Amino acid sequence: MSNQRTPLTYKDAGVDIDAVTTALRSVARMAKSTHTPPVLTGLGSFGALFKPDFSAMDEPVLVSSADGVGTKLMVARRAGRFDTIGADLVNHCVNDILVMGAEPLFFLDYLVAGHWPKGRLEDLISGFARACREQGVALIGGETAEMPGLYQPEDFDLAGFIVGVVDRAHILVPERVHAGDVLIGLKASGLHTNGYSLAQKVLFERMGLDVTDQLPGTTTTVGEALLAEHRCYLPCLKAFLRDPDLHAMSHVTGGGFTDNLPRVLPGELGAVIDRTRWEIPPLFEVIAAGGPVERDEMDRTFNMGIGMVLVVEASAADRMVQGLEAQGEEPVLMGTVEAGGGVRYVGG
Amino acid sequence: MSNQRTPLTYKDAGVDIDAVTTALRSVARMAKSTHTPPVLTGLGSFGALFKPDFSAMDEPVLVSSADGVGTKLMVARRAGRFDTIGADLVNHCVNDILVMGAEPLFFLDYLVAGHWPKGRLEDLISGFARACREQGVALIGGETAEMPGLYQPEDFDLAGFIVGVVDRAHILVPERVHAGDVLIGLKASGLHTNGYSLAQKVLFERMGLDVTDQLPGTTTTVGEALLAEHRCYLPCLKAFLRDPDLHAMSHVTGGGFTDNLPRVLPGELGAVIDRTRWEIPPLFEVIAAGGPVERDEMDRTFNMGIGMVLVVEASAADRMVQGLEAQGEEPVLMGTVEAGGGVRYVGG
Repeated sequence: MSNQRTPLTYKDAGVDIDAVTTALRSVARMAKSTHTPPVLTGLGSFGALFKPDFSAMDEPVLVSSADGVGTKLMVARRAGRFDTIGADLVNHCVNDILVMGAEPLFFLDYLVAGHWPKGRLEDLISGFARACREQGVALIGGETAEMPGLYQPEDFDLAGFIVGVVDRAHILVPERVHAGDVLIGLKASGLHTNGYSLAQKVLFERMGLDVTDQLPGTTTTVGEALLAEHRCYLPCLKAFLRDPDLHAMSHVTGGGFTDNLPRVLPGELGAVIDRTRWEIPPLFEVIAAGGPVERDEMDRTFNMGIGMVLVVEASAADRMVQGLEAQGEEPVLMGTVEAGGGVRYVGG
Repeated sequence: MSNQRTPLTYKDAGVDIDAVTTALRSVARMAKSTHTPPVLTGLGSFGALFKPDFSAMDEPVLVSSADGVGTKLMVARRAGRFDTIGADLVNHCVNDILVMGAEPLFFLDYLVAGHWPKGRLEDLISGFARACREQGVALIGGETAEMPGLYQPEDFDLAGFIVGVVDRAHILVPERVHAGDVLIGLKASGLHTNGYSLAQKVLFERMGLDVTDQLPGTTTTVGEALLAEHRCYLPCLKAFLRDPDLHAMSHVTGGGFTDNLPRVLPGELGAVIDRTRWEIPPLFEVIAAGGPVERDEMDRTFNMGIGMVLVVEASAADRMVQGLEAQGEEPVLMGTVEAGGGVRYVGG
């Protein structure tokens, strides 16, 4: 019996190593475009080599983070746009270590699909590579897989890993924060990478919109609004990283202000946020009305238009705001730090 | 209309932040059990802090790698066993940087599911934590996600990311290898983490076996044989990492000897492997016969019982073999390095 069967190959089992190898060649070229001087090799060896220069630091501390883009990738798929979510992921990761006071060194990705259609890997990696170049991060490695049994042919997922460095004395720890500190919010570019399960449920299911429809009250489409790239706050904050008046920073990711601000405050302190201090962008208003989703739930799910919150010495707030404005930012004096834990919302 | 609708929450959209938070608490305890002295914080902040001690090195080079476990996780699911594949992933990653000459520092994970059933995350992380403790690697962070729209409720995936260090002078580069070098193979513990798509197609589809069936010619079940943990070669190779007679190492992963040996050889050299030098373990024989899968395809898909190949100075081979045997290894003198690229198989 078995002699009559066609011999099986790995390709029969749904994995085409040669096709993936071809795509990986163009991926390697893109990755190479991100390589900073400390990168000792390209991709291809078992591990990626990075020779850091810590000579200007007293006690270099490595800061690392892992992230996914969550269900934002379902929007990308729905819109047939694959060259932005890699950038979302890089920028998200850079922001996560930035709030510890760190600057990024290198990034690795994990990419998996049921099947990689021609060009898809290249599109995804082009997003990684572009954001890495913009932020001076070396894309030095990654893993690319096809798992036909686990993922549907068109399904895919991606994750990213970043490593950066900070001199120990400049790590932003909660202990630097004290009552009376001021919260400065920096504008988000959209939903960034959180709340997409709820956003899709409201916009696509409850409201019956699709990615090509116009977002009510705006001139952009729903797809454009949802896929707006997660912005990176490194360029505008780099100059403040060793400023003693910068006490903490919170990246407003999954869980919104409600979950993310307490992460950077000492246990006995809480944040008071004045909701009247900034205008909620239309996308959030549409979701809130279209659900409906109550304001407390919005605040613990979305960034509400503020993607980064700085906790600063009160006497330095004006100076910081001016410094940020000089870089084209529209900083928002959005609240203060007070006794008591958690986040208390006022004025809305 | 919309006023009559129940207000939507993030939980309605399929994401239960509170339930995940509860699981993450026990996960944090397990991760903490892996924390080596350089770890400055636990999980929970935006980035994980690791203060390395490079004082004994002249030019520390960071070596990093990202990996998944591939479709081995479908076997884990089929067998209902979730506490081993985390260890597979850690050990795979450690081996990948080991072959560059590096020892591991820290590890981060990415875990995603349609829904995390009670205990699943804990089981998976227990595998990460156990292997990390065994290898002295700090599990310092990770990302855990629920993506109900992308993954079926029972589906999940995991990826890992490792960072290690090697002193620049001790990096294993292809240029160290020359013709006449000897290949020493170290036994694998099973399929490790590659070839599972083909293995499942043969065993489950063509042969009609299931995980609880006995593997023909053995006393173990198919599930036990397939889930055997990817072994870590760090303990037995640590003593050789600065040995000038160790020229290169190849971790036999996806692509088998055929793809992985050339990765560590200079372009003008190739490997000659004598297939008669070791006995193929029963699992590989069963797959080859059950497909049938031809030997060349087996060699470019599976590790064939040899998970790590050392490329050593010929005059040092006996000494290395004895040193390995003293540690309980059964090293195999499996071939040599000769002029000409690629891998040439003889004797089988």
